[in-house]
Parts: sequence; C-alpha cells; structure tokens
Amino acid sequence: MKTNEQLQTLFEHYLAQTDFPAEPQLLYAPIGYSLAGGGKRLRPMLTLLSYAIFDENVQQALPAAAAIEVFHNFTLLHDDIMDNAAIRRGKPSVYAKWGRNVAILSGDAMLIYAYRLLGMLPAAQVPKVLAAFNEMALEVCEGQQYDMDFEEKQKVSVVEYMHMIELKTSVLLAGAVSIGAMLGGAPDEDCRRLRRFAIELGLAFQLQDDLLDSYGDERLGKAIGGDILEGKKTFLTVTAMSHADETTREELRNLLADNRMAAEQKIASVKAIYDRLDVPHLAEQQIELRFERALAQLDTLSADVVRTAPLREFAIGLLGRNK
Amino acid sequence: MKTNEQLQTLFEHYLAQTDFPAEPQLLYAPIGYSLAGGGKRLRPMLTLLSYAIFDENVQQALPAAAAIEVFHNFTLLHDDIMDNAAIRRGKPSVYAKWGRNVAILSGDAMLIYAYRLLGMLPAAQVPKVLAAFNEMALEVCEGQQYDMDFEEKQKVSVVEYMHMIELKTSVLLAGAVSIGAMLGGAPDEDCRRLRRFAIELGLAFQLQDDLLDSYGDERLGKAIGGDILEGKKTFLTVTAMSHADETTREELRNLLADNRMAAEQKIASVKAIYDRLDVPHLAEQQIELRFERALAQLDTLSADVVRTAPLREFAIGLLGRNK
Repeated sequence: MKTNEQLQTLFEHYLAQTDFPAEPQLLYAPIGYSLAGGGKRLRPMLTLLSYAIFDENVQQALPAAAAIEVFHNFTLLHDDIMDNAAIRRGKPSVYAKWGRNVAILSGDAMLIYAYRLLGMLPAAQVPKVLAAFNEMALEVCEGQQYDMDFEEKQKVSVVEYMHMIELKTSVLLAGAVSIGAMLGGAPDEDCRRLRRFAIELGLAFQLQDDLLDSYGDERLGKAIGGDILEGKKTFLTVTAMSHADETTREELRNLLADNRMAAEQKIASVKAIYDRLDVPHLAEQQIELRFERALAQLDTLSADVVRTAPLREFAIGLLGRNK
Repeated sequence: MKTNEQLQTLFEHYLAQTDFPAEPQLLYAPIGYSLAGGGKRLRPMLTLLSYAIFDENVQQALPAAAAIEVFHNFTLLHDDIMDNAAIRRGKPSVYAKWGRNVAILSGDAMLIYAYRLLGMLPAAQVPKVLAAFNEMALEVCEGQQYDMDFEEKQKVSVVEYMHMIELKTSVLLAGAVSIGAMLGGAPDEDCRRLRRFAIELGLAFQLQDDLLDSYGDERLGKAIGGDILEGKKTFLTVTAMSHADETTREELRNLLADNRMAAEQKIASVKAIYDRLDVPHLAEQQIELRFERALAQLDTLSADVVRTAPLREFAIGLLGRNK
C-alpha cells in the first residue's frame, strides 16, 4: 500500500500533466491558475484512500479524484464571484485577477472539464459514477443557495444551518469517498457507510472551521474574527441565537450588523456573548461528537482494519487530533 | 415516421414532465422559468430528426435532446450576465429578474442537470455520448470567449469571425445531430457527414441572423439595427472592414464607436457604407453557399432520401427558404 504522501504526489502529477489548449487564453489560463493554487487536496485524497481500501491499483481512480478536485475548484471560482471575494488561498481570486465574465466562463469550462475527466474512466464504470457525481454536484449547488439565502434571513435555526453545511461541505466529501469506493469494487453497504463517515467528517470539519475563525489556531494562516466582522451566519451565531434570551439575541444581532464599530471591539463584544453562552464549548462538543461518529463508521466496514488505517489517519490529521 | 410537429410536441411533453425540487426556490425556479421560455427548440429537433433517419423509436433520443436544450438554455443564462442583457425572448432575463448571483448558480445547476439527463440514456450509450457532449460544450465556451475577446479587439478578420461563430453556434448544432445519429445507430461516416451538414447550417443561420439584424425581415420580432447601435462585430462589420479602403475603415470604426449620434442616423450611416461596399450581397452569397453545402451533405448519407426528407425540410424552414 502507498503512503498518504505517495498518494498525494501521484495525484499532483496526474493533475499537472493535464494540458489545456493555449487559446482562448482567457478561458484556459484561469483554470490552470486555479488548479495550481494548491489547497489541501482533501477531496481527491478521500477518493484515492477510499479506493485503496478495496483495490491496490489506485491509478484507476485518478480521473475521478481529479474530476472531484476540479469540481471543487469550480465551486470556489464561482463562489468568489457571488461573495465578492478578492483573495483565495493567499492569492488574488480569478474573479479579482481577471474580472467577473472571465470567472463565470472559465468556471463553466472547469465544470465541463470535470465531466471530461469522468469520461476517462473505464466505460463500464462511467454511468454509475456519472449518476453519483451529478447528484452530488446538484446538492452542492443547493447548499450554496441556502448559504446565500441565510444572508437575507433574520432567523436561521441550528438544524437549518447543519442542513446547509451538510449540502455545501459534507456532500462533496461523501461523493469523493463513495465514488472512490465504488470504483474500487466496494460492496454497496460499505459505500453507504463511507458516505456516512464523510458526512459526519465534513460536519466536524466545517464546525471546526467556524470555531477557529473566531477563536483561532496557530495552524490557520488567516486573521481571527473574519466571520464576526462580516456578520456571517456560522455555527457560533446560530447556536448563540438558539441559547440566548431575547435581550441578548437583540444585542448580538445589532453587534453583528454594526459596520461602524472598531474591528477589535466588535470581535471582543461578540466573543464575550459567545463565551457567556458557552458557545465555544458547545461547538467543541459537536465537533467531537461528529468526529467520533465518523470514525465509528470506519469500524463497521467489511474491510480489514489495516486497510482502513490510512483513511482513519488522514481524517485524524485533517481535524488535527491525536488519537 | 412522425411529422416534425409531432416530434416537437413529443419533446415539449418530455421537457415539461421534469419535476424540479421546490427548494431552494431561488436555485430551481429560474431553471423552470428559463426552460418554459420557449424558443424554437431548434437543437433538440435536430437531435430527434437525426435519430429518426436511422431508427423509428425516437423516444430513445429524448433525454439527449433535452440535455442539449438544457445546455443551450444554460449558455443563454450565463451569456445574459456577461452581456448585461435584460431581455430574453421578450421576457426579463433570469439575470434581470433575479440578479447576478441567482443567475450564476441556477445556470450552474442547469449545466449539471443537462448531464443528469444524459445519465438517463441506456448505460451502454452513456460513455460515447458523454464524450461527444463534453467536447461540444467546451468548444461552445471557447466560442463565447472569442466573442468577448473580439469586443476588445481592434481588428477581427473574416476568418477569425467565421471561426468564432463556428464554435459559438455551429458546434452545438453539430453536437445535436451527431449525438442523435449516434444514438440511432448511424454508421460513423454518416455521423461525420451530419456534423458537416450542421456546421454549414449553423454558419448560414448565424450569418442570416447578422444580416437580418441590420436589414430586417417581417419574421423577426425585434427592432432593426440593434447590432449597429451596440457597435457589435458581426459578419457585416468584418466583411466591410476587409473590403474598405483605409478612409472608409476609419469612418466605419468611428461611426460604430459613436454613442452620441441619433440612433436612426447611426444606423443609416453605417448601412450606407455597407451598401456602398456591397456587403448585404456578399452576406447573401455566403448564406446561400453555406446552405447549399449543408444540403449537399444530406445527399451523401447512406440512408434513403425519404428518411432524410424531414431533416431537409426542417433546415429549409429554418433558413426561411423555398426549395
């Protein structure tokens, strides 16, 4: 079996060998720029690791892993237009660098290109992988729409928030693992269990992201408090709202909507409310719960524990846990 | 064999039976709105008519015909954002009605939905249809990018312009006929000939569109001279530029860029130059040439002339010719 590092190298080589046409330059250059931008390659790694549980010949899964990574980057490209985001992974976003129209159209081409990668799988595998991919892709769009809807919405419940991040984040991880497992010849029941693993892992991952944005972590390269300054709805805000009395809710709503308050003061005031309501602790509990549930699914797979160990380690590393 | 009218009804019923989820409303409502907007259903008709040359059971081609129509409407949806277009088929565009973000994301969902329709074809057919569809879809994006590039470009040759409209318009018609023929079990050589038919037909169709925009036609519901007022590059402008002397070129360039001149005067002045350079006649010649070439391809098909007659009639009707 290959180490996780070897798998990642294999994937980077596969992705880098893609040759885009030179012309029209404004269509293809942003795709190369976006894919070379790095990131954790979390999703394709999940595909390869899930495949490797059931079959040695992990090269077979590379086109699907690449399709999922290209799709993920396509969503970022279009999300950055919708969110007016100028920076992506420490560099100018395609939107900021080339403008709106180029970002729309090169994003479209990227989505098509993801499907072209799927078409490189063995023909017998294409129909079922295509079906799984389409379902996943539509649900990710639904998640993004709910996320945008929430910006306009006064009241978002914890349940609604969890549903949104399940669609926006978890579903893509679930697609990544189940397509990998499917290609590796996993029994249907194992595919279903891996999906549940990924759904829970994605929730833990997103909630941790929400928590770290306000409470920080030395591993995080970004400034603390971005979500608070934007007044963004996160697990912290929706949890605080559900636990607060009416006065505190009003206070928090006003604080989050306040764009004139000094940044440090706004962050400190919001966090004071979170702390008073025990929100960081509640978030930690949810992360732990989701993470434990995810790992428990791995124990139920039909495969030997030796074969599932790399995926388990990867998940542990992703959440930065020591187990 | 079904009449063209029966085919169109069959298609409308198939498309209308699609049930989109109710939520998130802002993701799915624009898709239904866009698909219900009508249009000529030119592309799916080409798919069904090409299928029908080789096989009676035309229902088999409905998912592919629908995928192509959905893809076409997806391109219109995103093009309208890029072109800032408020009106589409006499109604507010999705962009104008719901705004930029909704148009981006529901367009993305539409593109994915087109692939979902492809996934409804018999599994054995999916890989080759997917490959043809992907190639077509990427080329359409290339055409749109060249079209946008031309806006910034001082000098566009007739050859460059023809290449752009081949990608932007013809390639989709070529995809429509070749996927239909492929599904109907056509020999490869017939698929290639039908592709060439559609490429030439698309060029004739687009050049006629360019001509009618400035010279009008009672069948056209839109005001005359829109392209001239926008200073858009069309077959008329690139042909005029290639035939004019330097003084006239300069004059035409200045006229097209002039946004302060009265509309009627601008249109009349530009058309006076076109007329002087015999541009309408040159355009008519090209349309006729391309149209003849298209029909000639139909004569070379292995199928009996009785079977190709409906497609021929459809093409003749499309260009408004009597033959």
